[in-house]
Amino acid sequence: MTQDIDDLIDMAEPAAGDGGGEGGERRERRGRGAASGREARRAARARPKTAYAPYITRRVPTFDVLSQEGLEIIEANAETILEEIGIDFRDDAEALAIWRDAGADVRGERVHIPRGLARKLIATAPATFTQHARNPERSVEIGGKTTVFAPVYGPPFVRGLDGGRRYATIEDFRNFVKLAYLAPAMHHSGGTVCEPVDLPVNKRHLDMVYAHIRYSDKPFMGSVTHPERALDTLEMAKIVFGAEFVQDNPVTTSLINANSPMVWDSTMLGALKNYARSNQATIITPFILAGAMSPVTVAGTLAQTLAEAMAGMAFAQLCRPGAPVIFGSFASSISMQSGAPTFGTPEPALVLYGCAQLARRLGVPFRSGGSLCGSKVPDAQAAYESANTLLPTVLGGVNFVLHAAGWLEGGLVSSYEKFVMDADQLGMMRTMLEGVDLSENGQAMDAIREVGPGAHFLGCAHTQANFETAFFRSSIADNNTYEQWLAEGERDAATRAGGLAKKLLDEYEAPAIDPGVDEALVEFMAKKKAAFPDSNI
Amino acid sequence: MTQDIDDLIDMAEPAAGDGGGEGGERRERRGRGAASGREARRAARARPKTAYAPYITRRVPTFDVLSQEGLEIIEANAETILEEIGIDFRDDAEALAIWRDAGADVRGERVHIPRGLARKLIATAPATFTQHARNPERSVEIGGKTTVFAPVYGPPFVRGLDGGRRYATIEDFRNFVKLAYLAPAMHHSGGTVCEPVDLPVNKRHLDMVYAHIRYSDKPFMGSVTHPERALDTLEMAKIVFGAEFVQDNPVTTSLINANSPMVWDSTMLGALKNYARSNQATIITPFILAGAMSPVTVAGTLAQTLAEAMAGMAFAQLCRPGAPVIFGSFASSISMQSGAPTFGTPEPALVLYGCAQLARRLGVPFRSGGSLCGSKVPDAQAAYESANTLLPTVLGGVNFVLHAAGWLEGGLVSSYEKFVMDADQLGMMRTMLEGVDLSENGQAMDAIREVGPGAHFLGCAHTQANFETAFFRSSIADNNTYEQWLAEGERDAATRAGGLAKKLLDEYEAPAIDPGVDEALVEFMAKKKAAFPDSNI
Repeated sequence: MTQDIDDLIDMAEPAAGDGGGEGGERRERRGRGAASGREARRAARARPKTAYAPYITRRVPTFDVLSQEGLEIIEANAETILEEIGIDFRDDAEALAIWRDAGADVRGERVHIPRGLARKLIATAPATFTQHARNPERSVEIGGKTTVFAPVYGPPFVRGLDGGRRYATIEDFRNFVKLAYLAPAMHHSGGTVCEPVDLPVNKRHLDMVYAHIRYSDKPFMGSVTHPERALDTLEMAKIVFGAEFVQDNPVTTSLINANSPMVWDSTMLGALKNYARSNQATIITPFILAGAMSPVTVAGTLAQTLAEAMAGMAFAQLCRPGAPVIFGSFASSISMQSGAPTFGTPEPALVLYGCAQLARRLGVPFRSGGSLCGSKVPDAQAAYESANTLLPTVLGGVNFVLHAAGWLEGGLVSSYEKFVMDADQLGMMRTMLEGVDLSENGQAMDAIREVGPGAHFLGCAHTQANFETAFFRSSIADNNTYEQWLAEGERDAATRAGGLAKKLLDEYEAPAIDPGVDEALVEFMAKKKAAFPDSNI
Repeated sequence: MTQDIDDLIDMAEPAAGDGGGEGGERRERRGRGAASGREARRAARARPKTAYAPYITRRVPTFDVLSQEGLEIIEANAETILEEIGIDFRDDAEALAIWRDAGADVRGERVHIPRGLARKLIATAPATFTQHARNPERSVEIGGKTTVFAPVYGPPFVRGLDGGRRYATIEDFRNFVKLAYLAPAMHHSGGTVCEPVDLPVNKRHLDMVYAHIRYSDKPFMGSVTHPERALDTLEMAKIVFGAEFVQDNPVTTSLINANSPMVWDSTMLGALKNYARSNQATIITPFILAGAMSPVTVAGTLAQTLAEAMAGMAFAQLCRPGAPVIFGSFASSISMQSGAPTFGTPEPALVLYGCAQLARRLGVPFRSGGSLCGSKVPDAQAAYESANTLLPTVLGGVNFVLHAAGWLEGGLVSSYEKFVMDADQLGMMRTMLEGVDLSENGQAMDAIREVGPGAHFLGCAHTQANFETAFFRSSIADNNTYEQWLAEGERDAATRAGGLAKKLLDEYEAPAIDPGVDEALVEFMAKKKAAFPDSNI
């Protein structure tokens, strides 16, 4: 429907009280009257193109749940874990040697880090850094007051446009990259937007990285499933950005997960070392299902998360002081009945708020949150749980938001419908984080004076002047009358979202790429793939 | 499913990293092994009864979006509206006389309130007050750090247990009262939980008030659709609480809506006067669809809301200094395409946060929020929008939350399914508002020491000791495996909620009531109904 303030004015009537209720007939829409010259005005008000905003800079405070005293308790407990209990660095003799040299007490594979050492090492990590995109307008600043949204990461399944659930393919992968590229509120192309299980495990990372580069121009994440694959990611980045640039400037942000409780394994450490030594950003994330991989309490989970993250981030600084690291926290609770992970519950939100505070005190960017849910389908459960994760994410001050769109079924499924529904939600978060406009125009006293008691604001000069920018406009929500909704087929939000996803993919056009670069990437992949046999390890 | 930690332990395996993903197979559930003595332990751990908690007392801070300077700008603008633009008090000569005597400049029906006068008058209003329930254990404290949840208010339609949409009846009304009574997280029985359109307008308030008293023992709201009906509410309250008690103690909280912009009408003023003079609580609420009934900006809507609410609250204090008043704000934005109200968008959340701050500075309790949505059905749109309203509600520090459960389709529909889905969400909010437990048990350092790197927490002593209270447990969310969900019929959240609503109503048992009181109430209603003919005005 074309926006038309004249229609609003036609519909307007003096607001009349309905007495007892707040949802009554006063809001039933009236039929549209004719208005002369409307078409001309409509054309004149053609919506201006929104300037591309590559990330959000918040103007509202963060929401903090821990007092100064609470923070100090958690930090002291984390130091106790590091020193007395220790963290395992498994199957990586080099890592153990590095820790020994740094002054840790290494017993077998267990590294006991003296109080204060990890925090001291982390001091060399930058508080904010730029991750460069191949389109410089899409480079993102990560840390401080910024928020960057990235898509779902990791699911082996997709829920497709036909609504069915099946294994993901590289075609799905490309589709999610395209949807992320097309979503104005999505700042980042992400990493494993779904797991392309139709490709061999030992080669699929090439096609994944290529898809991010070719089908998007937003920043992307690197492969972490093998140290060698991290190097491949960097080789491909060098083709795009130049070898010298990649050696010093973050062009990838990659996900390094702990094996909680208190274990870092050689796969992750290998990728971490390769990225950090090239000054590439890593997200050091204890991945915790609280109750199974950490205590059943928020404060216990906070201390353990902090200890694990500090050990990983300090290690990255030992590999290359100044390498960008992001303090990551992925925390869900579990069902005490079944052991299944649960999402959108209050305890993980409290962990998120607390971790965000702890990260700020460490002076490093923070990653958490997203649009997490346990639901099998994009229904009310999915939406409640996602909103209950996303709002704490933005209010708590998360800088890098993985899983910001598309996550379903506890991360087992990437959903097309959910992706566009979530992306719609992400659009709101900018308005939220920008806070209240207190300019003279924002105060709108002229409008209140012009309209006065008992009249309406639809046609007043201030409303006309602010028409284009007034109020967030959802691409998914149906706010039409019941009768119109019936006439349009009683479609629920998921159905509408599926239609929008199809439309977006149909209309998708790839961003331009230097043909020489593209050719070099394709050639690199072909050579790599030919060098060793397919394998699913 | 019976909770059983043994099952969890059986299922547990050492957490193994999956490398690249965060949603992978590590969380697939394993089959259950047999465990000796399990039944005995299960019985021994029968869940203890939760003590009834009649309202929430927050332990986390409020989330504030306005700076001191911003608050002062809004407050100055509100005083300008009160003094220069004025507020209409329509068709109520007594109200105009009261204002004139108080020092306002009354021109026709427009009351110009000198700067500072309204705020000075509001100083006599209590910062917190107790609304008494007929069961004293369910009396609620409203104001300060408390949050009280009350059901949806006002819809003429219901979406029934068969999923269809139809006009509401008194039977529906009773059902929603019963559901609110049964919901542990619902603190209040509310008011017009739906509009019983099968009863005559001029008599239905009697059956509504009676239903609240008879089918619940939680506090309730009074009728406001006519000053006379407010008096009937008080007469019935006197039968329950005693005449003397009702003259001085709040036993009702009633909704007084402004006709924004800047109009108070005689219906609302009549009810307000009758309640305030009996020291009964009123919620003074500018009901605003921003863009139509206020400017299209947040700051403009804030100033107007504050001015309207201050005029109403000051008037209540003129009727009886010290009468409890609640600063109310109902703000939605509108679609600039169609004029339809929209919910769950960021602008109304910003209005909510701002108004909550303004109310705290006035020193009065605050009402706003709820589980608002524009969706026609309890789908993802309904849930996103509701969560996007409810979380700001609790984080912003709302004291009295109307529409906390059951609201659908912009308040035109009370939904059974949505009611139980929302009530489930409300349960989470207590945990959220209680914040992080920093006791020794909460810190859980013993658990971390006991378990150590690479093991799991499922069977450790700390987990066993905290099993019953660990983690919020949803009554709606399905966190089972995909296969189990398939086997159970692929039910979405709304379908499961419908089943739960049916079950609750089937199992409902009315709270006890003194038969003499019940008889007197029935007699009062019969006498009233016989005294004048039915009418739908």
